[in-house]
Amino acid sequence: MPYVNIKVTDEQVTTAQKRQLIEGVTQLLVDILNKNAQTTHVVIDEVPMGNWGHNGKQYKGTKS
Amino acid sequence: MPYVNIKVTDEQVTTAQKRQLIEGVTQLLVDILNKNAQTTHVVIDEVPMGNWGHNGKQYKGTKS
Amino acid sequence: MPYVNIKVTDEQVTTAQKRQLIEGVTQLLVDILNKNAQTTHVVIDEVPMGNWGHNGKQYKGTKS
Amino acid sequence: MPYVNIKVTDEQVTTAQKRQLIEGVTQLLVDILNKNAQTTHVVIDEVPMGNWGHNGKQYKGTKS
Amino acid sequence: MPYVNIKVTDEQVTTAQKRQLIEGVTQLLVDILNKNAQTTHVVIDEVPMGNWGHNGKQYKGTKS
Amino acid sequence: MPYVNIKVTDEQVTTAQKRQLIEGVTQLLVDILNKNAQTTHVVIDEVPMGNWGHNGKQYKGTKS
Repeated sequence: MPYVNIKVTDEQVTTAQKRQLIEGVTQLLVDILNKNAQTTHVVIDEVPMGNWGHNGKQYKGTKS
Repeated sequence: MPYVNIKVTDEQVTTAQKRQLIEGVTQLLVDILNKNAQTTHVVIDEVPMGNWGHNGKQYKGTKS
Repeated sequence: MPYVNIKVTDEQVTTAQKRQLIEGVTQLLVDILNKNAQTTHVVIDEVPMGNWGHNGKQYKGTKS
Repeated sequence: MPYVNIKVTDEQVTTAQKRQLIEGVTQLLVDILNKNAQTTHVVIDEVPMGNWGHNGKQYKGTKS
Repeated sequence: MPYVNIKVTDEQVTTAQKRQLIEGVTQLLVDILNKNAQTTHVVIDEVPMGNWGHNGKQYKGTKS
Repeated sequence: MPYVNIKVTDEQVTTAQKRQLIEGVTQLLVDILNKNAQTTHVVIDEVPMGNWGHNGKQYKGTKS
Protein backbone atom coordinates (compact mmCIF):
# COMPACT_ATOMS: atom_id res chain seq x y z
CA MET A 1 0.00 0.00 0.00
CA PRO A 2 -0.95 2.67 -0.78
CA TYR A 3 -3.10 1.90 -3.79
CA VAL A 4 -4.31 4.67 -6.09
CA ASN A 5 -6.81 4.36 -8.92
CA ILE A 6 -7.11 7.20 -11.43
CA LYS A 7 -10.04 7.23 -13.81
CA VAL A 8 -9.99 9.55 -16.81
CA THR A 9 -11.80 9.56 -20.11
CA ASP A 10 -10.03 7.75 -22.92
CA GLU A 11 -8.56 10.61 -24.92
CA GLN A 12 -5.18 9.48 -26.14
CA VAL A 13 -3.28 9.86 -22.90
CA THR A 14 0.34 9.25 -23.87
CA THR A 15 2.76 6.83 -22.24
CA ALA A 16 4.82 9.81 -21.10
CA GLN A 17 1.81 11.45 -19.45
CA LYS A 18 0.98 8.21 -17.66
CA ARG A 19 4.57 7.99 -16.45
CA GLN A 20 4.43 11.56 -15.15
CA LEU A 21 1.15 10.86 -13.32
CA ILE A 22 2.56 7.71 -11.73
CA GLU A 23 5.76 9.49 -10.67
CA GLY A 24 3.90 12.51 -9.35
CA VAL A 25 1.27 10.64 -7.35
CA THR A 26 3.86 8.27 -5.87
CA GLN A 27 6.04 11.21 -4.86
CA LEU A 28 3.09 12.93 -3.15
CA LEU A 29 2.49 9.84 -1.04
CA VAL A 30 6.15 9.66 -0.10
CA ASP A 31 6.37 13.38 0.71
CA ILE A 32 3.05 13.91 2.49
CA LEU A 33 2.41 10.56 4.20
CA ASN A 34 5.96 9.22 4.37
CA LYS A 35 4.92 6.09 2.45
CA ASN A 36 7.32 3.64 0.86
CA ALA A 37 7.36 3.97 -2.94
CA GLN A 38 8.19 0.26 -3.23
CA THR A 39 4.79 -0.71 -1.90
CA THR A 40 2.88 2.04 -3.72
CA HIS A 41 0.74 1.10 -6.70
CA VAL A 42 -1.01 3.42 -9.14
CA VAL A 43 -3.53 2.13 -11.69
CA ILE A 44 -4.88 4.33 -14.49
CA ASP A 45 -8.22 3.41 -16.06
CA GLU A 46 -9.15 5.02 -19.38
CA VAL A 47 -12.93 5.13 -19.75
CA PRO A 48 -14.61 5.49 -23.17
CA MET A 49 -16.28 8.92 -23.48
CA GLY A 50 -19.73 7.41 -23.94
CA ASN A 51 -19.40 5.45 -20.69
CA TRP A 52 -18.84 8.53 -18.53
CA GLY A 53 -21.79 10.61 -17.45
CA HIS A 54 -21.53 14.07 -15.92
CA ASN A 55 -24.48 16.28 -15.11
CA GLY A 56 -26.72 13.50 -16.37
CA LYS A 57 -25.16 13.45 -19.85
CA GLN A 58 -22.50 11.45 -21.67
CA TYR A 59 -19.27 13.20 -22.52
CA LYS A 60 -19.18 14.00 -26.21
CA GLY A 61 -15.61 14.79 -26.98
CA THR A 62 -15.73 17.99 -24.96
CA LYS A 63 -12.63 18.34 -22.81
CA SER A 64 -13.32 18.47 -19.09
CA MET B 1 -19.78 13.93 -5.85
CA PRO B 2 -21.65 11.70 -5.89
CA TYR B 3 -19.69 9.14 -7.89
CA VAL B 4 -21.38 6.02 -9.24
CA ASN B 5 -19.69 3.04 -10.87
CA ILE B 6 -21.82 0.52 -12.74
CA LYS B 7 -20.29 -2.78 -13.75
CA VAL B 8 -22.09 -4.97 -16.28
CA THR B 9 -20.98 -7.72 -18.57
CA ASP B 10 -19.94 -6.59 -22.04
CA GLU B 11 -22.95 -7.52 -24.14
CA GLN B 12 -23.38 -4.78 -26.69
CA VAL B 13 -24.90 -2.16 -24.44
CA THR B 14 -25.93 0.62 -26.82
CA THR B 15 -25.05 4.30 -26.52
CA ALA B 16 -28.73 5.04 -25.98
CA GLN B 17 -28.94 2.54 -23.11
CA LYS B 18 -25.88 4.06 -21.49
CA ARG B 19 -27.44 7.51 -21.82
CA GLN B 20 -30.65 6.27 -20.18
CA LEU B 21 -28.70 4.70 -17.31
CA ILE B 22 -26.69 7.89 -16.74
CA GLU B 23 -29.83 10.05 -16.84
CA GLY B 24 -31.76 7.70 -14.58
CA VAL B 25 -29.09 7.24 -11.92
CA THR B 26 -28.31 10.97 -11.83
CA GLN B 27 -32.00 11.79 -11.44
CA LEU B 28 -32.34 9.32 -8.54
CA LEU B 29 -29.52 11.08 -6.71
CA VAL B 30 -31.13 14.47 -7.31
CA ASP B 31 -34.58 13.25 -6.25
CA ILE B 32 -33.69 11.07 -3.26
CA LEU B 33 -30.60 12.76 -1.82
CA ASN B 34 -31.05 16.27 -3.22
CA LYS B 35 -27.65 16.09 -4.87
CA ASN B 36 -26.44 18.51 -7.53
CA ALA B 37 -26.39 16.89 -11.00
CA GLN B 38 -23.47 19.13 -11.98
CA THR B 39 -21.19 17.38 -9.53
CA THR B 40 -22.57 13.88 -10.16
CA HIS B 41 -20.48 11.43 -12.16
CA VAL B 42 -21.51 8.01 -13.46
CA VAL B 43 -18.98 5.59 -14.94
CA ILE B 44 -20.04 2.40 -16.73
CA ASP B 45 -17.55 -0.48 -16.96
CA GLU B 46 -18.25 -3.25 -19.46
CA VAL B 47 -16.57 -6.47 -18.29
CA PRO B 48 -15.82 -9.32 -20.73
CA MET B 49 -18.06 -12.35 -19.98
CA GLY B 50 -15.09 -14.59 -19.21
CA ASN B 51 -13.81 -12.15 -16.59
CA TRP B 52 -16.99 -12.25 -14.50
CA GLY B 53 -17.57 -15.11 -12.13
CA HIS B 54 -20.89 -15.88 -10.47
CA ASN B 55 -21.56 -18.92 -8.33
CA GLY B 56 -17.97 -19.94 -8.90
CA LYS B 57 -18.33 -20.03 -12.70
CA GLN B 58 -17.59 -17.73 -15.61
CA TYR B 59 -20.54 -16.30 -17.48
CA LYS B 60 -20.90 -18.05 -20.80
CA GLY B 61 -23.18 -15.87 -22.85
CA THR B 62 -26.14 -16.59 -20.60
CA LYS B 63 -28.06 -13.44 -19.81
CA SER B 64 -28.22 -12.55 -16.13
CA MET C 1 -24.06 -8.94 -11.95
CA PRO C 2 -24.62 -6.13 -12.39
CA TYR C 3 -22.69 -4.53 -9.55
CA VAL C 4 -23.19 -0.86 -8.70
CA ASN C 5 -21.13 1.18 -6.25
CA ILE C 6 -22.48 4.56 -5.14
CA LYS C 7 -20.15 6.93 -3.28
CA VAL C 8 -21.63 9.92 -1.47
CA THR C 9 -20.38 12.10 1.34
CA ASP C 10 -21.39 10.95 4.81
CA GLU C 11 -24.23 13.32 5.65
CA GLN C 12 -26.79 11.32 7.56
CA VAL C 13 -28.29 9.44 4.65
CA THR C 14 -31.28 7.64 6.16
CA THR C 15 -32.09 3.95 5.89
CA ALA C 16 -35.18 4.88 3.89
CA GLN C 17 -33.13 6.92 1.41
CA LYS C 18 -30.70 4.05 0.98
CA ARG C 19 -33.62 1.70 0.34
CA GLN C 20 -35.02 4.07 -2.28
CA LEU C 21 -31.63 4.33 -4.01
CA ILE C 22 -31.22 0.55 -4.05
CA GLU C 23 -34.75 0.02 -5.40
CA GLY C 24 -34.38 2.75 -7.99
CA VAL C 25 -31.01 1.72 -9.34
CA THR C 26 -31.99 -1.95 -9.48
CA GLN C 27 -35.18 -1.08 -11.35
CA LEU C 28 -33.23 0.99 -13.90
CA LEU C 29 -31.02 -2.01 -14.64
CA VAL C 30 -34.07 -4.25 -15.05
CA ASP C 31 -35.90 -1.74 -17.26
CA ILE C 32 -33.07 -0.47 -19.44
CA LEU C 33 -30.75 -3.49 -19.73
CA ASN C 34 -33.21 -6.28 -18.96
CA LYS C 35 -31.03 -7.48 -16.08
CA ASN C 36 -32.14 -9.91 -13.40
CA ALA C 37 -32.74 -8.16 -10.06
CA GLN C 38 -31.77 -11.35 -8.24
CA THR C 39 -28.18 -11.05 -9.43
CA THR C 40 -28.00 -7.27 -9.07
CA HIS C 41 -25.99 -5.82 -6.18
CA VAL C 42 -25.81 -2.18 -5.07
CA VAL C 43 -23.26 -1.01 -2.49
CA ILE C 44 -23.40 2.48 -0.96
CA ASP C 45 -20.22 3.96 0.50
CA GLU C 46 -20.51 6.97 2.78
CA VAL C 47 -17.28 8.99 2.66
CA PRO C 48 -16.33 11.43 5.45
CA MET C 49 -16.51 15.04 4.18
CA GLY C 50 -12.83 15.66 4.87
CA ASN C 51 -11.85 12.65 2.72
CA TRP C 52 -13.56 13.95 -0.43
CA GLY C 53 -11.84 16.55 -2.55
CA HIS C 54 -13.54 18.54 -5.30
CA ASN C 55 -11.91 21.36 -7.23
CA GLY C 56 -8.77 20.71 -5.19
CA LYS C 57 -10.49 21.33 -1.85
CA GLN C 58 -12.06 19.22 0.88
CA TYR C 59 -15.80 19.43 1.30
CA LYS C 60 -16.64 21.48 4.36
CA GLY C 61 -20.23 20.70 5.15
CA THR C 62 -21.45 22.45 2.02
CA LYS C 63 -24.08 20.40 0.24
CA SER C 64 -23.16 19.36 -3.27
CA MET D 1 -22.52 -10.46 -1.95
CA PRO D 2 -19.66 -10.92 -1.52
CA TYR D 3 -18.11 -9.00 -4.38
CA VAL D 4 -14.44 -9.46 -5.28
CA ASN D 5 -12.44 -7.41 -7.77
CA ILE D 6 -9.06 -8.71 -8.92
CA LYS D 7 -6.76 -6.38 -10.81
CA VAL D 8 -3.77 -7.81 -12.64
CA THR D 9 -1.63 -6.58 -15.48
CA ASP D 10 -2.79 -7.63 -18.93
CA GLU D 11 -0.40 -10.46 -19.77
CA GLN D 12 -2.39 -13.06 -21.63
CA VAL D 13 -4.21 -14.56 -18.70
CA THR D 14 -5.98 -17.58 -20.16
CA THR D 15 -9.66 -18.44 -19.84
CA ALA D 16 -8.67 -21.50 -17.81
CA GLN D 17 -6.63 -19.40 -15.38
CA LYS D 18 -9.54 -17.01 -14.94
CA ARG D 19 -11.83 -19.94 -14.26
CA GLN D 20 -9.42 -21.29 -11.63
CA LEU D 21 -9.18 -17.88 -9.94
CA ILE D 22 -12.98 -17.52 -9.87
CA GLU D 23 -13.43 -21.03 -8.49
CA GLY D 24 -10.69 -20.62 -5.92
CA VAL D 25 -11.75 -17.24 -4.59
CA THR D 26 -15.40 -18.27 -4.41
CA GLN D 27 -14.47 -21.43 -2.52
CA LEU D 28 -12.41 -19.42 -0.01
CA LEU D 29 -15.42 -17.25 0.75
CA VAL D 30 -17.62 -20.32 1.20
CA ASP D 31 -15.07 -22.09 3.39
CA ILE D 32 -13.82 -19.22 5.54
CA LEU D 33 -16.87 -16.95 5.83
CA ASN D 34 -19.63 -19.44 5.12
CA LYS D 35 -20.89 -17.31 2.23
CA ASN D 36 -23.33 -18.49 -0.40
CA ALA D 37 -21.61 -19.09 -3.76
CA GLN D 38 -24.82 -18.16 -5.56
CA THR D 39 -24.55 -14.57 -4.41
CA THR D 40 -20.78 -14.35 -4.80
CA HIS D 41 -19.37 -12.36 -7.72
CA VAL D 42 -15.76 -12.13 -8.88
CA VAL D 43 -14.64 -9.60 -11.49
CA ILE D 44 -11.19 -9.71 -13.05
CA ASP D 45 -9.75 -6.51 -14.56
CA GLU D 46 -6.76 -6.79 -16.86
CA VAL D 47 -4.79 -3.54 -16.82
CA PRO D 48 -2.38 -2.59 -19.64
CA MET D 49 1.24 -2.70 -18.41
CA GLY D 50 1.80 0.98 -19.12
CA ASN D 51 -1.19 1.94 -16.96
CA TRP D 52 0.16 0.29 -13.81
CA GLY D 53 2.75 2.06 -11.73
CA HIS D 54 4.80 0.42 -9.00
CA ASN D 55 7.61 2.11 -7.12
CA GLY D 56 6.92 5.22 -9.18
CA LYS D 57 7.52 3.45 -12.50
CA GLN D 58 5.40 1.84 -15.20
CA TYR D 59 5.66 -1.91 -15.59
CA LYS D 60 7.69 -2.75 -18.67
CA GLY D 61 7.00 -6.35 -19.38
CA THR D 62 8.77 -7.48 -16.26
CA LYS D 63 6.80 -10.11 -14.43
CA SER D 64 5.75 -9.13 -10.90
CA MET E 1 0.33 -5.89 -8.33
CA PRO E 2 -1.91 -7.78 -8.23
CA TYR E 3 -4.47 -5.83 -6.22
CA VAL E 4 -7.57 -7.56 -4.85
CA ASN E 5 -10.55 -5.89 -3.20
CA ILE E 6 -13.03 -8.05 -1.28
CA LYS E 7 -16.35 -6.54 -0.24
CA VAL E 8 -18.49 -8.35 2.31
CA THR E 9 -21.23 -7.23 4.64
CA ASP E 10 -20.08 -6.14 8.09
CA GLU E 11 -20.95 -9.17 10.21
CA GLN E 12 -18.17 -9.55 12.74
CA VAL E 13 -15.56 -11.05 10.48
CA THR E 14 -12.74 -12.00 12.82
CA THR E 15 -9.07 -11.08 12.48
CA ALA E 16 -8.29 -14.76 11.98
CA GLN E 17 -10.81 -15.03 9.14
CA LYS E 18 -9.35 -11.95 7.47
CA ARG E 19 -5.88 -13.46 7.78
CA GLN E 20 -7.09 -16.71 6.19
CA LEU E 21 -8.72 -14.81 3.31
CA ILE E 22 -5.56 -12.77 2.69
CA GLU E 23 -3.35 -15.87 2.80
CA GLY E 24 -5.70 -17.85 0.58
CA VAL E 25 -6.22 -15.23 -2.10
CA THR E 26 -2.51 -14.40 -2.23
CA GLN E 27 -1.64 -18.09 -2.59
CA LEU E 28 -4.14 -18.48 -5.46
CA LEU E 29 -2.43 -15.65 -7.34
CA VAL E 30 0.98 -17.21 -6.76
CA ASP E 31 -0.20 -20.68 -7.78
CA ILE E 32 -2.43 -19.86 -10.76
CA LEU E 33 -0.79 -16.75 -12.24
CA ASN E 34 2.73 -17.14 -10.90
CA LYS E 35 2.54 -13.72 -9.25
CA ASN E 36 4.96 -12.46 -6.62
CA ALA E 37 3.38 -12.40 -3.15
CA GLN E 38 5.58 -9.45 -2.21
CA THR E 39 3.78 -7.21 -4.67
CA THR E 40 0.31 -8.62 -4.00
CA HIS E 41 -2.14 -6.55 -1.99
CA VAL E 42 -5.54 -7.61 -0.66
CA VAL E 43 -7.98 -5.10 0.83
CA ILE E 44 -11.13 -6.19 2.66
CA ASP E 45 -14.04 -3.73 2.91
CA GLU E 46 -16.78 -4.45 5.44
CA VAL E 47 -20.03 -2.83 4.30
CA PRO E 48 -22.87 -2.08 6.75
CA MET E 49 -25.88 -4.37 6.05
CA GLY E 50 -28.17 -1.44 5.29
CA ASN E 51 -25.79 -0.14 2.63
CA TRP E 52 -25.85 -3.34 0.57
CA GLY E 53 -28.74 -4.00 -1.76
CA HIS E 54 -29.47 -7.33 -3.39
CA ASN E 55 -32.53 -8.08 -5.49
CA GLY E 56 -33.60 -4.46 -4.94
CA LYS E 57 -33.65 -4.81 -1.14
CA GLN E 58 -31.32 -4.01 1.75
CA TYR E 59 -29.83 -6.94 3.61
CA LYS E 60 -31.54 -7.31 6.96
CA GLY E 61 -29.28 -9.52 9.00
CA THR E 62 -29.98 -12.54 6.81
CA LYS E 63 -26.80 -14.39 5.98
CA SER E 64 -26.01 -14.55 2.31
CA MET F 1 -13.98 13.61 -14.24
CA PRO F 2 -11.28 12.74 -13.49
CA TYR F 3 -12.00 10.60 -10.44
CA VAL F 4 -9.18 9.46 -8.16
CA ASN F 5 -9.44 6.97 -5.30
CA ILE F 6 -6.57 6.75 -2.82
CA LYS F 7 -6.47 3.83 -0.41
CA VAL F 8 -4.12 3.96 2.56
CA THR F 9 -4.05 2.17 5.89
CA ASP F 10 -5.86 3.96 8.70
CA GLU F 11 -2.99 5.49 10.66
CA GLN F 12 -4.17 8.87 11.84
CA VAL F 13 -3.83 10.73 8.58
CA THR F 14 -4.48 14.37 9.52
CA THR F 15 -6.95 16.72 7.90
CA ALA F 16 -4.02 18.82 6.72
CA GLN F 17 -2.35 15.81 5.08
CA LYS F 18 -5.60 14.92 3.32
CA ARG F 19 -5.89 18.50 2.09
CA GLN F 20 -2.33 18.38 0.73
CA LEU F 21 -2.98 15.08 -1.05
CA ILE F 22 -6.17 16.43 -2.61
CA GLU F 23 -4.47 19.65 -3.73
CA GLY F 24 -1.43 17.80 -5.05
CA VAL F 25 -3.27 15.14 -7.01
CA THR F 26 -5.69 17.66 -8.50
CA GLN F 27 -2.81 19.88 -9.57
CA LEU F 28 -1.06 16.94 -11.26
CA LEU F 29 -4.17 16.26 -13.33
CA VAL F 30 -4.41 19.93 -14.31
CA ASP F 31 -0.71 20.18 -15.16
CA ILE F 32 -0.15 16.85 -16.91
CA LEU F 33 -3.49 16.15 -18.58
CA ASN F 34 -4.90 19.68 -18.76
CA LYS F 35 -7.98 18.61 -16.80
CA ASN F 36 -10.45 20.99 -15.22
CA ALA F 37 -10.09 21.08 -11.42
CA GLN F 38 -13.80 21.86 -11.09
CA THR F 39 -14.74 18.43 -12.39
CA THR F 40 -11.94 16.58 -10.59
CA HIS F 41 -12.83 14.47 -7.56
CA VAL F 42 -10.46 12.77 -5.13
CA VAL F 43 -11.69 10.27 -2.53
CA ILE F 44 -9.43 8.98 0.26
CA ASP F 45 -10.29 5.64 1.87
CA GLU F 46 -8.64 4.77 5.19
CA VAL F 47 -8.46 0.99 5.58
CA PRO F 48 -8.04 -0.65 9.02
CA MET F 49 -4.58 -2.27 9.31
CA GLY F 50 -6.06 -5.75 9.83
CA ASN F 51 -8.05 -5.47 6.59
CA TRP F 52 -5.01 -4.88 4.39
CA GLY F 53 -2.90 -7.82 3.32
CA HIS F 54 0.53 -7.54 1.76
CA ASN F 55 2.80 -10.45 0.95
CA GLY F 56 0.04 -12.74 2.27
CA LYS F 57 0.03 -11.12 5.72
CA GLN F 58 -2.01 -8.48 7.53
CA TYR F 59 -0.28 -5.22 8.33
CA LYS F 60 0.57 -5.09 12.02
CA GLY F 61 1.29 -1.48 12.72
CA THR F 62 4.47 -1.55 10.68
CA LYS F 63 4.72 1.51 8.47
CA SER F 64 4.81 0.80 4.76
